[in-house]
Amino acid sequence: MRALYFDGNHAAVVERPDPVAGPDVALVRVSLAGICRTDLELCRGYLGFHGVLGHEFVGRVVTGPPEWCQQRVVGEINFACGRCEACAQNLERHCPTRRVMGIDGADGAIAELVAVPIENLHRVPDALPDARAVFVEPLAAAFEIPAQIAIEPGVRCIVLGDGKLGLLVAQVLHAAGAQVTALGHHDAKLAVLARRGIATARAEAFAADPAPLVVEATGSIAGFRRALALTRPRGTLVLKSTVAAHEPLDLAPIVIHEIQLLGSRCGPFPPALRALENGDVDVDALVTARVPLARAEQALSRAAERGALKVLVDCS
Amino acid sequence: MRALYFDGNHAAVVERPDPVAGPDVALVRVSLAGICRTDLELCRGYLGFHGVLGHEFVGRVVTGPPEWCQQRVVGEINFACGRCEACAQNLERHCPTRRVMGIDGADGAIAELVAVPIENLHRVPDALPDARAVFVEPLAAAFEIPAQIAIEPGVRCIVLGDGKLGLLVAQVLHAAGAQVTALGHHDAKLAVLARRGIATARAEAFAADPAPLVVEATGSIAGFRRALALTRPRGTLVLKSTVAAHEPLDLAPIVIHEIQLLGSRCGPFPPALRALENGDVDVDALVTARVPLARAEQALSRAAERGALKVLVDCS
Repeated sequence: MRALYFDGNHAAVVERPDPVAGPDVALVRVSLAGICRTDLELCRGYLGFHGVLGHEFVGRVVTGPPEWCQQRVVGEINFACGRCEACAQNLERHCPTRRVMGIDGADGAIAELVAVPIENLHRVPDALPDARAVFVEPLAAAFEIPAQIAIEPGVRCIVLGDGKLGLLVAQVLHAAGAQVTALGHHDAKLAVLARRGIATARAEAFAADPAPLVVEATGSIAGFRRALALTRPRGTLVLKSTVAAHEPLDLAPIVIHEIQLLGSRCGPFPPALRALENGDVDVDALVTARVPLARAEQALSRAAERGALKVLVDCS
Repeated sequence: MRALYFDGNHAAVVERPDPVAGPDVALVRVSLAGICRTDLELCRGYLGFHGVLGHEFVGRVVTGPPEWCQQRVVGEINFACGRCEACAQNLERHCPTRRVMGIDGADGAIAELVAVPIENLHRVPDALPDARAVFVEPLAAAFEIPAQIAIEPGVRCIVLGDGKLGLLVAQVLHAAGAQVTALGHHDAKLAVLARRGIATARAEAFAADPAPLVVEATGSIAGFRRALALTRPRGTLVLKSTVAAHEPLDLAPIVIHEIQLLGSRCGPFPPALRALENGDVDVDALVTARVPLARAEQALSRAAERGALKVLVDCS
């Protein structure tokens, strides 16, 4: 099969052996895959990954149990062991020996075929087109927030970052009933939210009282500092992006203001599928480009360009 | 009156004007006061404080409403405005314009007399001696943890730090039903906990699975890093000490493991008073020295010595 393969030095579309199905593993023919910021970081050496890239996809099962064959599916990316303490507590996404599709120990989905544990599959409703279903995985990450904390109706919420994740988080929290203000540096990206009736502001011009709920989705330490300053005493600051401080960082405000800093990663697929089906979240406006698999290397470059949002790779 | 006064450069016992009572403010004759790490930091310039030091005390009301006069009392240290949004939500300890006794904008209690808002006073039961009642304020800070999060019976908990706060936190969580292991660097301090049936270990020799509940009470960035590594996925890491990183700090584990980092500061007095009355917490073993007010400067030096725990100042 053809696949976008990262060999530790660079990523290229190459011929790779077909993945193999098993009693608990289905083979999926990929229709459409998405490129995520993590893919770009993997290509810079993050996690020392070697293999087929990609963990956002929609496709059709070609080998698997009869009830799954020919079903159109999306798939959760954490491949858990199913036998450890975390798995026994339904914390499969935190299984310490998990492999992660296209990220850690398992081949990814920017390819003609991908192998996925059957328990990770979710059927895609007929009415949901591929170009939206491919957003289920990143949208599920946004839905992790209401899965972790109760969103009180009308709660004031500030989302920092107008990248893909920030735009999805702002829409999910808005749909959940929060009174969201999204902060960013890109008028065109913020306009996606404004069209949905969400308040937006240029981050540099924003002045407001600290809010009880703040989401950091910039991935920068400056964003983290700003987010901390915008969180009111006893409030919750959700960290959606991994952040590393390479300069002094004062954590005292967390103690003084008794802030809850909550890490948030992968999330549940069912509410993401429902939200896309119901049109609660606009993902169409997030598509910057759609590129065929043969030109997937350019897709990576395109995704890395300033101002880019989601680049999709057509694998069919 | 005589008081331990910090003028911005050094602390000395000097003659100061008596504090003044008011319709909502009682005058308390201090029996015993405690020295806290914060007092030592204030003397190094923290918060730019000038004034009478001390925020841990027990004493007797000498001027105030008839129902309070001659009552033996302890007092909460955050003097709230009573009119703002935080105060309306019973978040007086987070009132943005609060003054804090002996810390920020209000004179403290290492003195013959201290002025305390009546709403901040708590009566001390007759059976509770001064030398224990003086621990109510720091013990209340430990009780803030079970006030913030439910402690499940038998939950595995690691407390890092065998200073005063760590020893109080370990005892409070043990009494609340957690299965506590306390880590420190001082055998004599850890022995206080061992005598209460609490598991202890030298921090450098400790190896264990990450726990669902971890409390950082070392105040060092090394302690924070260790605490983070000892918190299991989806676990809670309570920050009791203010920490500042002056070297690179990677917050990614918080996101990857979806850890809840919870800042925790001052706490409720009533459970601390009850625990001291019931003997649930041993504070006698925490007293390093008891010094008369006339020698309060030496008390500060003594409290700063390596290995010291609580130094009390006799103000009567």
